[in-house]
Amino acid sequence: MNDAAYGEFVAFAEGLAETSGEILRRYFRAPFEIDDKPDASPVTPADREAESRMREIIAATYPEHGVCGEEFAPVRLDAEFVWMIDPLDGTKSFITGKPLFGTLIGLLHRGRPVVGIIDHPALGERWVGGVGQPTAFNGARVGVRACVSLAKAVLYTTTYETFEGADREAFDRARKAVRLPMYGGDCYAYGLIASGFVDLIIETDHGPDDFFPLVPVIENAGGLMTDWSGAALTMESDGRVVAAGDEKVHAEALALLNGEHAP
Amino acid sequence: MNDAAYGEFVAFAEGLAETSGEILRRYFRAPFEIDDKPDASPVTPADREAESRMREIIAATYPEHGVCGEEFAPVRLDAEFVWMIDPLDGTKSFITGKPLFGTLIGLLHRGRPVVGIIDHPALGERWVGGVGQPTAFNGARVGVRACVSLAKAVLYTTTYETFEGADREAFDRARKAVRLPMYGGDCYAYGLIASGFVDLIIETDHGPDDFFPLVPVIENAGGLMTDWSGAALTMESDGRVVAAGDEKVHAEALALLNGEHAP
Repeated sequence: MNDAAYGEFVAFAEGLAETSGEILRRYFRAPFEIDDKPDASPVTPADREAESRMREIIAATYPEHGVCGEEFAPVRLDAEFVWMIDPLDGTKSFITGKPLFGTLIGLLHRGRPVVGIIDHPALGERWVGGVGQPTAFNGARVGVRACVSLAKAVLYTTTYETFEGADREAFDRARKAVRLPMYGGDCYAYGLIASGFVDLIIETDHGPDDFFPLVPVIENAGGLMTDWSGAALTMESDGRVVAAGDEKVHAEALALLNGEHAP
Repeated sequence: MNDAAYGEFVAFAEGLAETSGEILRRYFRAPFEIDDKPDASPVTPADREAESRMREIIAATYPEHGVCGEEFAPVRLDAEFVWMIDPLDGTKSFITGKPLFGTLIGLLHRGRPVVGIIDHPALGERWVGGVGQPTAFNGARVGVRACVSLAKAVLYTTTYETFEGADREAFDRARKAVRLPMYGGDCYAYGLIASGFVDLIIETDHGPDDFFPLVPVIENAGGLMTDWSGAALTMESDGRVVAAGDEKVHAEALALLNGEHAP
């Protein structure tokens, strides 16, 4: 299969994003009771409804494809093509009224992420990445920016709270080495790397349905996204991710995360 | 002067927000060189141009009023009415492409904040608060939500990085006591309190041009905003602020910030 053939799937994935976005917009900022469990109702209805609808569309169009999502059991993970879908990434932003949450849609071909979408339905903003075509933001080509060193880099992470123990120490080494550490990006920050406004993201606790859709957006904009050891992301990855626009920043970040001290 | 008379100033302040927003949108995400100093060019041109233009309009309309802003020296701080303007609050979000930055516009009458606007020109979203009228979001009335205790509260703060020493310890006591600590809100999070999606904000390093415009938005939505001792904010406040939708959450947060331990 040549790279250009993935274009069909890019267009299909954009249709999925439209479907998910219509559902999320209906639930966003709708009145609801505060619950002790942040992920509880009515976020679950939004999540489940969007994922169900996307699964129906995938099954109707590509019945031989596999699907892996947040809300339901995976199907056909051994298929040649497997869709990775996270209908609502940034649930905590969603339930607190902040519009940076998004729908993530990715496609694996024999385990390799070949299509990725980061869609922000409350903002009307979408990044689309596919092998064989440059990453686009709302239809216009974008690309990463060069950054000569970690000391010049803008770093984003969603929250301190996920870093614990040795991970916290590793993250602290990195955040102290950058020019500007920023918080609260959700999946939006990955788009900002692709568009050349941010240089680095360091996070943990990502599942395959979170990180696979991000990879084509970053890579086809000229960037890199790996685990903390520098290895390509796979279904078996431990959830620690590093994304960067410039390979020098990526390499310096990996060194710090793995215990080397800043010069 | 009765409260209804402030309506004239609310309408005028909305016009200032339009003017500032047009200028900021022109600079947002425009290509620019990375600079070592995050606040450097071309943010300064955006800031300075927006503040200059607002000052011209104020001087032409209300030549007897005072003005205090970020970029230029204050004038007539002893006037009966003093405008507090921060053309670009959330500079670091602005320069990294994140649309949560805003223009803050407030009016003091004999030292009391009587009008406040939080305007988000990249999002087309605006909160308006004025004494004698309920806070509005894009023209529709909004209000805070009840929250029975700190343990049930959603907390926002822009970044950990501003908390140092004893302030860090105080903030840590609070963030560990809430249901959900969130980051990266900028001035947007104050609007989210007024709209009933967020319960608490704890921050430091606010200047009078930052915090005064927020107070009428919070108060006229039914919330509270004070310094960390619980005192009303004044030109002499130390920059530490606490905003809350429910007085019980505000009181519990103050107790923790001032060294009392959670029960």
